[in-house]
Amino acid sequence: MALFERLPDRVHVYEVSPRDGLQNESATVPTHGKARMIDALVGAGIQQLEVTSFVSPKWIPQLADAEEVIQLTQPLERRDQGIHFSALCPNMRGLDRAISTGIGTIAVFVSASESHNKKNVNKTVDETLAVFEQVVPAARKQGLRVRGYVSTVWGCPYEGEIPVRQAIAVASRLMELGCYQVSLGDTIGVGTPVQTLQIINAFLQEFEADTIAMHMHDTRGTALSNVLVGLDRGIRTFDASIGGVGGCPYAPGAAGNLATEDLVYTLEGMGVETGIDLGKLWEAGRVAEALVGHRLPGKVHQAGILSLAQ
Amino acid sequence: MALFERLPDRVHVYEVSPRDGLQNESATVPTHGKARMIDALVGAGIQQLEVTSFVSPKWIPQLADAEEVIQLTQPLERRDQGIHFSALCPNMRGLDRAISTGIGTIAVFVSASESHNKKNVNKTVDETLAVFEQVVPAARKQGLRVRGYVSTVWGCPYEGEIPVRQAIAVASRLMELGCYQVSLGDTIGVGTPVQTLQIINAFLQEFEADTIAMHMHDTRGTALSNVLVGLDRGIRTFDASIGGVGGCPYAPGAAGNLATEDLVYTLEGMGVETGIDLGKLWEAGRVAEALVGHRLPGKVHQAGILSLAQ
Repeated sequence: MALFERLPDRVHVYEVSPRDGLQNESATVPTHGKARMIDALVGAGIQQLEVTSFVSPKWIPQLADAEEVIQLTQPLERRDQGIHFSALCPNMRGLDRAISTGIGTIAVFVSASESHNKKNVNKTVDETLAVFEQVVPAARKQGLRVRGYVSTVWGCPYEGEIPVRQAIAVASRLMELGCYQVSLGDTIGVGTPVQTLQIINAFLQEFEADTIAMHMHDTRGTALSNVLVGLDRGIRTFDASIGGVGGCPYAPGAAGNLATEDLVYTLEGMGVETGIDLGKLWEAGRVAEALVGHRLPGKVHQAGILSLAQ
Repeated sequence: MALFERLPDRVHVYEVSPRDGLQNESATVPTHGKARMIDALVGAGIQQLEVTSFVSPKWIPQLADAEEVIQLTQPLERRDQGIHFSALCPNMRGLDRAISTGIGTIAVFVSASESHNKKNVNKTVDETLAVFEQVVPAARKQGLRVRGYVSTVWGCPYEGEIPVRQAIAVASRLMELGCYQVSLGDTIGVGTPVQTLQIINAFLQEFEADTIAMHMHDTRGTALSNVLVGLDRGIRTFDASIGGVGGCPYAPGAAGNLATEDLVYTLEGMGVETGIDLGKLWEAGRVAEALVGHRLPGKVHQAGILSLAQ
């Protein structure tokens, strides 16, 4: 089969900047600023957003205002328009907070690598999954959708390459517990395209394509190339972050997600609809940049929207 | 045929930073600095470099020291080691200067788009090709190899998309005149992968794969993805620029070439040999960064080599 022969008409862009982006910024963005950024993203046509996290404010003070952000952005009213907000929940305490806000989707996260999981949440992978055995069914009982994240699928900062069967085993547990989708993360942005082909092919032997998403960090410039390999193999949901917000560009190994503008520019240029207005998306990137107070790394963001018309 | 099924064992990275990179920097790098940068690139395993330009110093003062750079870096001695230096030559005057230095390869450049060519060299495409009707055979007669560039193949800042047959016609003229290879440029970095597939497929109906190279600017983050489409179709030479040097990151529409480190990281990660030592290449990027005096945009350059070992 030839390259890009079975491109879909439409794919889903899952915006993670308000959570995965802002939690990695040193500055804390004011609550009304977050709401403005979320409004701008939704106004550009983004339909799926992870807006905050119910992780303890002791761990991530940047997102301590989770309830207020959700209250200001009114996800309940937006659900009728097909717009879905999610929030990260590490445990039952987080779920209780999420339920009290009326948000429709939560996300749970676990690493494919023991060392990274331990470093990240101070639990083994099994201990983390044991917590989710409570959280996921409890959330489903309340009518919430649950999304899973498996991080370090392409590589771990402590263990190096991770066997794909290990990532598949973790993802399978999340699906069995009741997640509707598992987002596979290249957390440290080490992935290259042949590796991606192998990982995605292995996952597609066990999972339906629409239950898999890709969450690629752009640490070494390979995020978009890896996404296009996934697109070619049938993946239809891609996580992205406006302007590439989220990584400190001066810290080795820490870079943001694939920039949403670059992803949308590329997909639309390939004739794959995203439902997103690139001009408005670029404006949302300007809002995000002003809020975090430093230049964002996204390429379309930096090139400017004017040059697109030429 | 499946994606990446016929990957080559080895490809050629054509380093253009000393010319295409530095001519677009506002600061002029001292001659000995340029020689240090070229030495570092060769020391990392780069075998093909465009080191300077014999364009009039009135147009490009940054490269006014072309003769001195070549004298310092001694391309003649290096040719026995399979290392080929080239210099851009716009006309007979440039060729005379090139011949006097003993450099083994020159490059000529023309745009696929009339408006861009006119703006760039104040000549029509036909007038430019008429100059090359003199320059290319004269260079060949002196034993020089000649490389051709066709710019704005993926789009022109004044005319928008350019019909591929127009780019093919220009490239065919360059090959007929005696160029050994034509490098196809996405000068303003607008290309997307399906477009690349169409352009490369069209070219491969007229040209042998090894007579074609790709020269992609990374203005919208698509350069690596486009290169991988070309790789999949059989292209084996890719132009790149250390650290992505060359574009002013604040000027809309102006960004450097694909960063050499990102290209090499990706190719080596895919099992495609480049003959380049990534650690030494990263060090060469540090040299380049110090010389231009501002942070370079390349992703591997920014992530740091330490994190690669993890």
